[in-house]
Amino acid sequence: MRRSVIGGAKRTTTTTCLFLLNHAHHRSLLPPLHHRLDSSSSSSSATALLLLLRRLSSSSSSASSPSPPNMPNPVSVQSINPKVLKCEYAVRGEIVILAQRLQEELKAKPGSLPFDEILYCNIGNPQSLGQLPITFFREVLALCDHPAILDKAEAQGLFSADSIKRAWQILDQIPGRATGAYSHSQGIKGLRDTIAAGIEARDGFPANPNDLFLTDGASPAVHMMMQLLIGSEKDGLLCPIPQYPLYSASIALHGGSLVPYYLDEETGWGLEVSELKKQLKEARSKGITVKALVVINPGNPTGQVLAEENQRAIVEFCKQEGLVLLADEVYQENVYVPEKKFHSFKKVARSMGYGDNDLCLVSFQSVSKGYHGECGKRGGYMEVTGFSPEVREQIYKLASVNLCSNISGQILASLVMSPPKAFILSLSLSLFVNDFLLKVQDNYWQTLEDAFKSLEGITCNKAEGAMYLFPRIKLPEKAIKAAEAAKTAPDLFYCRRLLNATGVVVVPGSGFGQVRTSPCFLK
Amino acid sequence: MRRSVIGGAKRTTTTTCLFLLNHAHHRSLLPPLHHRLDSSSSSSSATALLLLLRRLSSSSSSASSPSPPNMPNPVSVQSINPKVLKCEYAVRGEIVILAQRLQEELKAKPGSLPFDEILYCNIGNPQSLGQLPITFFREVLALCDHPAILDKAEAQGLFSADSIKRAWQILDQIPGRATGAYSHSQGIKGLRDTIAAGIEARDGFPANPNDLFLTDGASPAVHMMMQLLIGSEKDGLLCPIPQYPLYSASIALHGGSLVPYYLDEETGWGLEVSELKKQLKEARSKGITVKALVVINPGNPTGQVLAEENQRAIVEFCKQEGLVLLADEVYQENVYVPEKKFHSFKKVARSMGYGDNDLCLVSFQSVSKGYHGECGKRGGYMEVTGFSPEVREQIYKLASVNLCSNISGQILASLVMSPPKAFILSLSLSLFVNDFLLKVQDNYWQTLEDAFKSLEGITCNKAEGAMYLFPRIKLPEKAIKAAEAAKTAPDLFYCRRLLNATGVVVVPGSGFGQVRTSPCFLK
Repeated sequence: MRRSVIGGAKRTTTTTCLFLLNHAHHRSLLPPLHHRLDSSSSSSSATALLLLLRRLSSSSSSASSPSPPNMPNPVSVQSINPKVLKCEYAVRGEIVILAQRLQEELKAKPGSLPFDEILYCNIGNPQSLGQLPITFFREVLALCDHPAILDKAEAQGLFSADSIKRAWQILDQIPGRATGAYSHSQGIKGLRDTIAAGIEARDGFPANPNDLFLTDGASPAVHMMMQLLIGSEKDGLLCPIPQYPLYSASIALHGGSLVPYYLDEETGWGLEVSELKKQLKEARSKGITVKALVVINPGNPTGQVLAEENQRAIVEFCKQEGLVLLADEVYQENVYVPEKKFHSFKKVARSMGYGDNDLCLVSFQSVSKGYHGECGKRGGYMEVTGFSPEVREQIYKLASVNLCSNISGQILASLVMSPPKAFILSLSLSLFVNDFLLKVQDNYWQTLEDAFKSLEGITCNKAEGAMYLFPRIKLPEKAIKAAEAAKTAPDLFYCRRLLNATGVVVVPGSGFGQVRTSPCFLK
Repeated sequence: MRRSVIGGAKRTTTTTCLFLLNHAHHRSLLPPLHHRLDSSSSSSSATALLLLLRRLSSSSSSASSPSPPNMPNPVSVQSINPKVLKCEYAVRGEIVILAQRLQEELKAKPGSLPFDEILYCNIGNPQSLGQLPITFFREVLALCDHPAILDKAEAQGLFSADSIKRAWQILDQIPGRATGAYSHSQGIKGLRDTIAAGIEARDGFPANPNDLFLTDGASPAVHMMMQLLIGSEKDGLLCPIPQYPLYSASIALHGGSLVPYYLDEETGWGLEVSELKKQLKEARSKGITVKALVVINPGNPTGQVLAEENQRAIVEFCKQEGLVLLADEVYQENVYVPEKKFHSFKKVARSMGYGDNDLCLVSFQSVSKGYHGECGKRGGYMEVTGFSPEVREQIYKLASVNLCSNISGQILASLVMSPPKAFILSLSLSLFVNDFLLKVQDNYWQTLEDAFKSLEGITCNKAEGAMYLFPRIKLPEKAIKAAEAAKTAPDLFYCRRLLNATGVVVVPGSGFGQVRTSPCFLK
């Protein structure tokens, strides 16, 4: 129902060709987008779209093909862990592997393809598309990497005074100033203190450094919680559809059940508690023990920003139903519409009077997103509240098995949660850049959104936040039939053709779990 | 049999009080040790040992306690993944948590305990104990973190010319010079090229950059292989006992079976193929499908370096029995005895004429060990050879779910596998430091080994490599009884008392899987 469009004239199928665009308007400044296209349109609109992409972009990242052929040996696909086979991760899946092959082809034989470069629009990776890092962050990282230069006179000419000052502060927080030592498995205590203070300043409610687990990006933190919560396929997690496929992938890897709840495209990807209740009831009737609810806010890949009222209802639902609330809040700094504001779920819960005894809540944060987009640094954390000391001990044990996360990522996480204040020169510069970036992003979203809307057969919700647009494309019947003949899902078929024709790398909507609706009619 | 000592006079029990010492002789230069003490001795010998440790050490690392108490909520220890409960990781386990508590106590109330500082001897973490990082590596890392300074005149005064040159080379290998972008999920292709060339130079046999998967230290690589190979508790892996507990922990987390094979202390921790065959047969008779053999060379925590002949027999065994060979080779640079040399299992297999079609072989390497000991940078890789393209695709998928490892760690892995040549100044310095470190380490091992041997009731094998000694201590009967009365394993009891009395943090031998032998007699 939700995804069918009923109308007259031309017969098409609404399919789920979802793709991610990943571009910088100015190489030096802009973070990526990703977009879903729900149906193909005429070739002229595809060309228009391509032209727009080419115009907006000026670079692409490169990567090699993953593996050469070897002969089979004791281990076969039949004998490995079946959960690995079941796991899918579309944002780096088939289309990306094809793109890497085409890139090799282009390198070996320039001019052999109808395009000269591959445009990687499959993931939010701003710096691969030319966005420059924030100087202050990088100065501090460089100084912490090589503290021996901190005292030298030349350093004053190369690094800002506030970077030098901050580097000293950070080094003093690290036992023995040893940035090359394993840290506490939750992360360096002093850096956790800084992050906790940042959370407190953001929310207006206390944060405890002992609740923080610093991780190599948010992904390992999500895996850790999945590993903790999932014991068998009878353990389920409520996940949004469409969703960032890390969730479906890690639930599959840990052998649990994904209990889908659907975001309503018609109401701007609204998250209705009635839908949560319905799906929870259904899952329970099948004997699934639902352990947790995953909420991504701002949404990935849908870009919606939840209203505070909506968040309150979600918190209430988790409390009543005894669910852990896993809040993916990595896009907390990427909000573009003046009428919306990011509120952490912890702030919302605390403002409702709910404390540690009322709700198990985990908030994920990453240095990869925001205005800085430091994906390659692999920094992040989770704030874990409301669990019993015994369960906390188990989470600590999981963290300890990998010893600790990388120290540069830990330092960067502390910087991101305590960015420079406006007074000092480099800080002002950083804040200016930050503000400018978000403004430019906003225009960029608008430009693309308008472009999509102007194309035949494409609809697209407004991006309120995150790094992505998620348009719907209606494929003509002929395309559906060609896909069926090729034994391929129509959205994958579309993405593959788009890539082969244009060099634009996008990901099919089914990769985000989006359901393909039955044949329907254009309005 | 293996671990009982038969003789006259004093009745004791050989127990498995294993502990890890982790010290620098000179704060600035020395990597850590770890040691096993198989029985307690008289209090005077314990005091002698403590005095030695205090004399050899001048620093300790600090870390906070992991969690404050919270009220229970929907999630309980009974409802979480039972595999998590089963998993144990002693090197950061109970004793370390107690040490962190004592450290907080010392901080809050100086003078309240019989010691002034905690000596963390539980893990190989050289820089936490004052070992300085290699300047060349850190210069290159700092320049790659903040490439904007590369062109500035002041940089010439702060960084060596060869560091600047190498930083440029590395940046040119990174698409868009973007050290803040997600890379290819196996790692940046250019850096993999460098590492492959380093492996080739080490082994004299070709290495393929597409066989390399760069990871955040070796631990995630080990987890990845466990995840791939283990589908149920019927899937087993042959693991040495004693072993670095990462293996038992990750096998438990992935729900497989650890099939132990025992290293023979009497023959310097010898690895006998007859023992492998015996344990394999026994496991198969129980219906276990043994997938792989784990070999740690140089040994952790035992410090033995395998003879090439022994390695050939192991390769032959894996080939004949259809086992994947998982070779933990992270201590490849830590060999201290002139009569032994490190040979990678790949080199050994290739020199036997076995290629990709004959053997599935995975070699793990890390930047945390060697003479550099860059634990906090979390760099490492695995070289994966002999798997079918279909299985390789699954390994790639597992790598892609976490996007990529941190770029600084990737860069450092490439530096470690292609260290500076002797001609250039900073390189010579690095090589000198390297050589010096290994020499000092050798003396250090010898000093400690001699000290252990001079103590009553302690025996200790020579450390040929790695970062650890592994002495055996014989506990008096009275101590065993006291442990029994306290419902504690004797080795844990010993370690806890040692910590409470001296501040020295060690790990019980049972944490490495070492079996406690029945009562026996001192010679």
